[in-house]
Amino acid sequence: MTPRPLRLALLGCGTVGTEVVRQLKSRHEDLAARVGAPLELVGIAVRDLTRPRDPAVDPALLTDDPSSLVGAGEADIVVELIGGLEPARSLLLTAMSRGASVVTANKALLAEDGVTIYEAAEKYGVDVYFEAAVAGGIPLIRPLRESLAGDTVRRILGIVNGTTNYILSRMDETGADFATALAEARSLGYAEADPTADVEGFDAAAKAAILGSLAFHTRISLGDVHREGIAGVTAEAVAAAHDMGYVIKLLAICERTDRGIGVRVHPAMIPRSHPLAAVRDAYNAVFVECEAAGHLMFYGRGAGGAPTASAVLGDIVAVGRNRVRGGVGIGESAYADLDVRPIGEAITRYHVNLDVADRAGVLAQVATVFARHDVSIQTVRQSGRGDDAQLAVLTHTAPDAALAATVADLRRLDAVRAVASVLRVEGEEGL
Amino acid sequence: MTPRPLRLALLGCGTVGTEVVRQLKSRHEDLAARVGAPLELVGIAVRDLTRPRDPAVDPALLTDDPSSLVGAGEADIVVELIGGLEPARSLLLTAMSRGASVVTANKALLAEDGVTIYEAAEKYGVDVYFEAAVAGGIPLIRPLRESLAGDTVRRILGIVNGTTNYILSRMDETGADFATALAEARSLGYAEADPTADVEGFDAAAKAAILGSLAFHTRISLGDVHREGIAGVTAEAVAAAHDMGYVIKLLAICERTDRGIGVRVHPAMIPRSHPLAAVRDAYNAVFVECEAAGHLMFYGRGAGGAPTASAVLGDIVAVGRNRVRGGVGIGESAYADLDVRPIGEAITRYHVNLDVADRAGVLAQVATVFARHDVSIQTVRQSGRGDDAQLAVLTHTAPDAALAATVADLRRLDAVRAVASVLRVEGEEGL
Repeated sequence: MTPRPLRLALLGCGTVGTEVVRQLKSRHEDLAARVGAPLELVGIAVRDLTRPRDPAVDPALLTDDPSSLVGAGEADIVVELIGGLEPARSLLLTAMSRGASVVTANKALLAEDGVTIYEAAEKYGVDVYFEAAVAGGIPLIRPLRESLAGDTVRRILGIVNGTTNYILSRMDETGADFATALAEARSLGYAEADPTADVEGFDAAAKAAILGSLAFHTRISLGDVHREGIAGVTAEAVAAAHDMGYVIKLLAICERTDRGIGVRVHPAMIPRSHPLAAVRDAYNAVFVECEAAGHLMFYGRGAGGAPTASAVLGDIVAVGRNRVRGGVGIGESAYADLDVRPIGEAITRYHVNLDVADRAGVLAQVATVFARHDVSIQTVRQSGRGDDAQLAVLTHTAPDAALAATVADLRRLDAVRAVASVLRVEGEEGL
Repeated sequence: MTPRPLRLALLGCGTVGTEVVRQLKSRHEDLAARVGAPLELVGIAVRDLTRPRDPAVDPALLTDDPSSLVGAGEADIVVELIGGLEPARSLLLTAMSRGASVVTANKALLAEDGVTIYEAAEKYGVDVYFEAAVAGGIPLIRPLRESLAGDTVRRILGIVNGTTNYILSRMDETGADFATALAEARSLGYAEADPTADVEGFDAAAKAAILGSLAFHTRISLGDVHREGIAGVTAEAVAAAHDMGYVIKLLAICERTDRGIGVRVHPAMIPRSHPLAAVRDAYNAVFVECEAAGHLMFYGRGAGGAPTASAVLGDIVAVGRNRVRGGVGIGESAYADLDVRPIGEAITRYHVNLDVADRAGVLAQVATVFARHDVSIQTVRQSGRGDDAQLAVLTHTAPDAALAATVADLRRLDAVRAVASVLRVEGEEGL
């Protein structure tokens, strides 16, 4: 007996969607065997019906009316690749109310308002799978949600944005400044015309919210994530880090603290011996520190049509299998409900580069400011003379608020001409 | 309403079992929240009732009669940490026939006779989970079985045995010979008194069979795996690899070929720029080449009580959730039923070090032997004079059988005093 086909509706047919359609067609038998039933595409909602498309996309399936496609209630599985809050949210809610399980790559929606989506899934007894929302083709969601369900995650350090990792890798390798490396990333298609979402850390922050929610069984939304981008990272700071045996990466950090959890995205210096330091170009990697399992790392391509399509198809197969068996997979787990603490409570180290006046007593004045905020200095290095005099200060760990207040006071010192760079230092305990 | 507790029976209580018991106790609330029901330990089968144990292990639960514990049919989940074929297999079969789902770390049993176990699970409608059987605490089974279910795996290159990786890392770092590095591994507890299972590649071969089965949806048993250990890896070969920009690793390789699949375990040279090259000491890592997702790597501690307990507890939570929901997870997938091809058909490259007579015409003779077997030479390096004359030959890719026949003929050449080392070269396409 051949089982009834599972009907798929696809919302959005750009690079990823086209790849999904192509593989649904070319690997039809294989996917049917893995699901336990054939997969049948019943509709594809697109913005522009007239746009030329890959031959794999059957024009008869196209519609520019996603609401009707979803509202018809014909689909067993709705795959959402539109992105953004609306109309994606409404479409997913309609789909679930009609009994469809959903597969989505929409990190913005899940980070901003995942609760609405997860609660609808629970209410209607359907699946919401979203492996493609974080780090493209790298399997992360199942490892965090299932494999590590018996463990306690202490900290996640993630390189989860390929554009910024490409830019920072190039700055590290060639000495280029930020603008030059960004231009190069654009010319290679690694950065969009408006690179704000990547460069300012919004994309990484959304992923951090999703990873933290899974790791800590707690609802974390985008507003809970402290976010700083990489536009302020100078060629000088990259070179100074290099000389000290560090590399600068944009990190998504989720960690347990004494009082709850902290979630933050910012550029940071990590030791070159850390496994994340070797993650270059547009690659992504997520380093997970667990109580029992120890240190794990998941590495691969974080973006691109084919890797993201791999994640989407993996979810389609999983959701499809659940349908064939007549059940659903594991839903949201937010039982721990930990408190999300502000950035000021994060325990970090700072590396501060100061342009200073070349006169006696400067170091004493600077050291006094650190001491006033109870921030202990690990090393100080003086270099240059005259107009080029600099102090590089590396601190011991301290609450971020104390470090930030120290830097604010340093800016007010007469002897300090400029605070050239301030970077947190991470990953040293992770070795 | 508090759900009925799920009853656990534990078979074996060594390092891993003790850690599992300790965590079931100390993290009782947390695990109950994740499962959706409390977990209750109803019995622990051990060999020696009189052995002193960790205070967490309640003596009242101990029995030296595992058959009765399992046969009583009281357990919802049976956790098997005994290892080996029997009595583990019979106990698991009894457990399943009584309706229990099973969690096992028994790679030998799954590699040798997984079919019997998987078929029983199917027959009785229960789960068999085994994350701990491969690479300890590194989540691998779910990524392969679920996350990548929508993709096509082309090749797996795995460092899946911590003992041999520690030995080879030390040889690479310190120039030590195999015996010295093995002695060091023993003194640190990384190698057992009888290191055969690790050093001869039996452990890695069992893991290769399991990984290959998952990746290729095909039944692969231990007998299908070509296996070579690392006892023959000399300090000279390690140094020569180092000079050429390579490092020697014991690899578990599973790959698609034109005619089916190949599964093999042997030492191999990989470029230092390959992500696996940086995996040192007792760490494990599995590098997966997929058609859509591209190159992925999973990295972490492959052994040890706590990491393995993390994997076991993750499986207990997953199986427990399935019980609470009244279903089972994804079972064996062997639909593809690909042909497992012999080692002779593997397409590889060889690096061959020859001790040769220091006279004219030797290179011509050697080159003639390679040509006779249609093996193309990429580079030859002559070094030393007199009794120390050597030829180092690196080939292009060729069928393993042709390379092996070439080496056999080289041994018969008068001008060749000894074939000092033969190593396959892997991972160069993987970059």
